[in-house]
Amino acid sequence: MRVLGVDPGLTRCGVGVVEGQTGRPPELVDVGVIRTKTQTEHAHRLLEIEQGLDEWVRRLNPDAIAVERVFAQHNMMTITGTAQAAGLAMMVAARHDIRVALHTPTEVKAAITGYGGADKAQVGAMVARVLRLPTAPTPADAADAVALAICHLWRGGANNRYAAAVQAHATRTGRQ
Amino acid sequence: MRVLGVDPGLTRCGVGVVEGQTGRPPELVDVGVIRTKTQTEHAHRLLEIEQGLDEWVRRLNPDAIAVERVFAQHNMMTITGTAQAAGLAMMVAARHDIRVALHTPTEVKAAITGYGGADKAQVGAMVARVLRLPTAPTPADAADAVALAICHLWRGGANNRYAAAVQAHATRTGRQ
Repeated sequence: MRVLGVDPGLTRCGVGVVEGQTGRPPELVDVGVIRTKTQTEHAHRLLEIEQGLDEWVRRLNPDAIAVERVFAQHNMMTITGTAQAAGLAMMVAARHDIRVALHTPTEVKAAITGYGGADKAQVGAMVARVLRLPTAPTPADAADAVALAICHLWRGGANNRYAAAVQAHATRTGRQ
Repeated sequence: MRVLGVDPGLTRCGVGVVEGQTGRPPELVDVGVIRTKTQTEHAHRLLEIEQGLDEWVRRLNPDAIAVERVFAQHNMMTITGTAQAAGLAMMVAARHDIRVALHTPTEVKAAITGYGGADKAQVGAMVARVLRLPTAPTPADAADAVALAICHLWRGGANNRYAAAVQAHATRTGRQ
């Protein structure tokens, strides 16, 4: 199963594709960031995000798309752009008839590190370890997108009992 | 100049097209609502909104698209869907290389009725009067989309001095 993780954002939209198979550790297929310039008109930035995401989907043909669930903790200008980028990712998935799942940041951190309050460095380090990479993907948006894809693989598949146990423990003890 | 107004929403996305020419009252070209069902998956609702908006743009070929600027006064679930629908409208405009303008609800009410605190019935009544219709378009989302298009025509064009004066007065006295 191949999962595209999307860390939505208007300036930097993280994208990461991970392949998972029963009994094997997940493999990184590709990772990157779709960037748009702050001086570009808002509508054209949205178009660039949409076209970028569509290109990733057509090129790498994922079975599922995992998008970070957007919350209101940031300021309204940021949240609007983030919600719109997340909406574009969901719309592109629907266009290609690909299943969409939303995961909260806490769920992702808990799945990857065993602790829902983990910081970005801890998430990056665990992403590198799980995928046997020398260093975490950069920038953090790229690592977060890969973490989302791994989270989706592990939460979706009953084939990884260890991850399921870690996840269950983290959900009980971590902050939601 | 032909303007498509979009009152963004996930359940009901109002759309209205108005044609304006110097020295003539604006004419209603078409008005309607793109509806999606609450039981449809969120990603597919977004796709339906996007496809619906794209169809309106291709069919009626507007010169500009006026979208209601989304604010945070509603609850977060509503605001997310509304922001995403607004984002889709902006993205569709950019795809067709059509100018986008955002207007706040206060700006629209002030432009149409002369008072930024007008209620939906007052906006609907003035939309009907301006366009010489027997009654206001229904539902309110459709009337709001038409009001947005008229607002954009009047604010954009220096050719309507009366509307400009009404607008200037309303901006001075109305609530922003």
